Amino acid sequence: MSKTITRQSEDFSRWYTDVVQKAELADYSPVKGCMVICPYGYSIWESIQRELDGRIKATGCRNAYFPLFIPESFINKEKSHLEGFSPECAVVTHAGGEELQEKLVVRPTSETIIYYMFSKWVKSYRDLPLLINQWANVVRWEMRTRLFLRTSEFLWQEGHTAHATYEEAEARTLQMLDEYASFAENFLAIPVIKGVKSDHERFAGAHRTYTIEALMRDKKCLQAGTSHNLGQNFSRPFEITFLDNEGKTQYAWQTSWGVSTRLIGALVMVHGDDRGLILPPAVAPIQVVMVPIWKNDGQKEEIIRMLGGLTTDIKNAGLRVEQDLRENVTPGFKFNDWEMRGVPLRVECGPKDLEEKTVVLCRRDTGTKEKIPLADLTGKCVELMPVIQNSLLERARLFLKENITEVNNKEELAAVLEDKGGLVSAHWCHGHSCEDIIKQETKATLRCIPCDAPTEMGSCVICGQPSEKRVLFARSY
Amino acid sequence: MSKTITRQSEDFSRWYTDVVQKAELADYSPVKGCMVICPYGYSIWESIQRELDGRIKATGCRNAYFPLFIPESFINKEKSHLEGFSPECAVVTHAGGEELQEKLVVRPTSETIIYYMFSKWVKSYRDLPLLINQWANVVRWEMRTRLFLRTSEFLWQEGHTAHATYEEAEARTLQMLDEYASFAENFLAIPVIKGVKSDHERFAGAHRTYTIEALMRDKKCLQAGTSHNLGQNFSRPFEITFLDNEGKTQYAWQTSWGVSTRLIGALVMVHGDDRGLILPPAVAPIQVVMVPIWKNDGQKEEIIRMLGGLTTDIKNAGLRVEQDLRENVTPGFKFNDWEMRGVPLRVECGPKDLEEKTVVLCRRDTGTKEKIPLADLTGKCVELMPVIQNSLLERARLFLKENITEVNNKEELAAVLEDKGGLVSAHWCHGHSCEDIIKQETKATLRCIPCDAPTEMGSCVICGQPSEKRVLFARSY
Repeated sequence: MSKTITRQSEDFSRWYTDVVQKAELADYSPVKGCMVICPYGYSIWESIQRELDGRIKATGCRNAYFPLFIPESFINKEKSHLEGFSPECAVVTHAGGEELQEKLVVRPTSETIIYYMFSKWVKSYRDLPLLINQWANVVRWEMRTRLFLRTSEFLWQEGHTAHATYEEAEARTLQMLDEYASFAENFLAIPVIKGVKSDHERFAGAHRTYTIEALMRDKKCLQAGTSHNLGQNFSRPFEITFLDNEGKTQYAWQTSWGVSTRLIGALVMVHGDDRGLILPPAVAPIQVVMVPIWKNDGQKEEIIRMLGGLTTDIKNAGLRVEQDLRENVTPGFKFNDWEMRGVPLRVECGPKDLEEKTVVLCRRDTGTKEKIPLADLTGKCVELMPVIQNSLLERARLFLKENITEVNNKEELAAVLEDKGGLVSAHWCHGHSCEDIIKQETKATLRCIPCDAPTEMGSCVICGQPSEKRVLFARSY
Repeated sequence: MSKTITRQSEDFSRWYTDVVQKAELADYSPVKGCMVICPYGYSIWESIQRELDGRIKATGCRNAYFPLFIPESFINKEKSHLEGFSPECAVVTHAGGEELQEKLVVRPTSETIIYYMFSKWVKSYRDLPLLINQWANVVRWEMRTRLFLRTSEFLWQEGHTAHATYEEAEARTLQMLDEYASFAENFLAIPVIKGVKSDHERFAGAHRTYTIEALMRDKKCLQAGTSHNLGQNFSRPFEITFLDNEGKTQYAWQTSWGVSTRLIGALVMVHGDDRGLILPPAVAPIQVVMVPIWKNDGQKEEIIRMLGGLTTDIKNAGLRVEQDLRENVTPGFKFNDWEMRGVPLRVECGPKDLEEKTVVLCRRDTGTKEKIPLADLTGKCVELMPVIQNSLLERARLFLKENITEVNNKEELAAVLEDKGGLVSAHWCHGHSCEDIIKQETKATLRCIPCDAPTEMGSCVICGQPSEKRVLFARSY
């Protein structure tokens, strides 16, 4: 099977689909809009889960599991939630051979079913804060789907909390936003911009939605995670009340926040190149791959013995290492295959290396090859892990920085979006109609009002009304 | 909140429900037949997942994820699979605001959707064996439900493999049965009987179903895991074919196997007593709990400081330990609470202990209390973990052994089932009608034909036809 893929410069979208399929991250399923996450792609998800789960628990949350099905009447309880999600819902009408009395929605997100339970569990201020996280599948029926980025079913974690005060809820919303940003940068080597969504773009039912936005290699933006301050928007219809320490009944203040398998799509599009995926070492299921090269059986045995020893050393040093001992493919095929899968380091070992007691070490991120003494291999691999991790982050940071352009009027905004792409930083009046005009004319949406945007007087690039901050627009996934 | 529960001897079924709710393992949800797995229950599931996932991967399987939805036509492809599952299916008829052209079934198990993908992936004998595992939620619409034991939605892992030969598939089926048995005994301290299901009781679509059966404290049996040799029953309708090494097209041979959140129900019912849950240390999310006892604030500070140090020591020794520093409940309440939750060891420390540099160490399984010097605490905790684990297993083994009764005719069989309960070992002719008569008259089902049953000539307790092996009947969950 040929592993040739479309070049990024030729057609980024086809390049993406090629990489996802040829690196065996995911495959199309026979169910419209649903994907199959293949073992290699799933092992990346397992890396993400393991790390993020630890970080979420470290903030005091505990995991739980709530039903897949939500009674239709629950979705209807919060008006904007209903409007946002009902067009995307998959609905169970029959079960156990009979028509159901009340239809069940397959969860598109779990606020309503979880908060029904919260209302049973929360009685007193002593029960607060209630900090829950769930790892689950959710379903949002999509017309135009794309592997990992937009699928009818996807996997995610959704955190749900209840607090005694607005301030505490806002602090938790920001805390989780920071966790997501730190996770994206330090684990996935994906730099992100933290910001607030406009009223129009916020989560259906939220008081305020924060987002982390990342820039892909095609200069389109991807929303990589969100954290919502829900105010009392759900605690009121679901009657989550508590007795405060003065014995007064109060409604709880809430937050929810989530990231999904979409992050795998971001990894592909932030780091990948024309040879395929490039995985940061922290998240890579395989960090080092060992490829033997032999011409005859005598060599083969010796080389495999040597590689076996090296593999054990590297494993004992705490790295995730594999040997590729396949017999029915050539070394060249193996090189391409592991490059496609984005493994950070490849070790080649042939007859000449055997003689000279060396190996060839190849970096996936830079493509550099280096002949090194056997004895130095393990140390070198360990040493390179943070170097590669950091180098990928720095490269992505530079790319992000170079692709944020300040514009001061509508024409500049349109020109930059059309010619250069990336994010444009522009003044905006906070009006939905101006946001909408930009979307209509440039296909760019308001990504966020950055958390760190300095106060700067200016005027909206559309209507000219005064503005105090620049916000970011971009075309996006 | 009172934590009093029904006694086992009074009403075992109510005792079970009381423990599950009061230990906060699970709660009823507003969706018929679906439960909420509460944080403490979910942390037990996480222990189970972590351990079992490692064991499954060690056998060469890789995790993947397949769609929640299965086109209705897929279920129809294997006749007995359809007959077995269609009465229990939840069906999505509408999505994205429109009626679907083809209805989608919420997976009751994933053979059909996974094997559709296998047929795309398997081409040559080099692609075999294909060894896949999935952690997922599944839905089987149940009329009479019970927390963990029988719920409309549950969590599980389902392994699916394809092989080149029948022998290899049979070997894998038995390998996974052995894995499950070893996991149940060594991790959950639940002794099990390995055996084959009768034709009538086997999985819908299987060639042969193996089971592990466990005995609960009320002497009813629980099927705790199954491993199926599917033969070519699915590879034929789903056209999973491969070119063998002679270039001939062959149908693959397959297996599937799974265990579920039902195991948590088994843990409760195998080890629990009138004070609540008793968790084997290996699976316990909290292995040691530290409870301070103070009469005034001066003491309190000193005791908490001391407990903090001890907690760190115990944690550094590799145990999972927590301190209970709640201020609004009494020490007595805490003792009951942790006993209810089945934590293996409790450490009490009061003013007198502070003076004498001692603590009191209490074992949940035996109820014994021991005063020990501070300096010995960590070592003692580490030492007791395998002791308690083993003691629970031995107790359960003895209980199982004492409750298998050989019977030689129908009257004995009925009398033992009625008076003593447990498993009866009886000769049976392999006829479904005799199996059915026993079920009608005694409510006992054929649990399995034990793998280690010796050849012994006898005659069927119902019809008198010759039989070569004793099989096991019991009332069950």
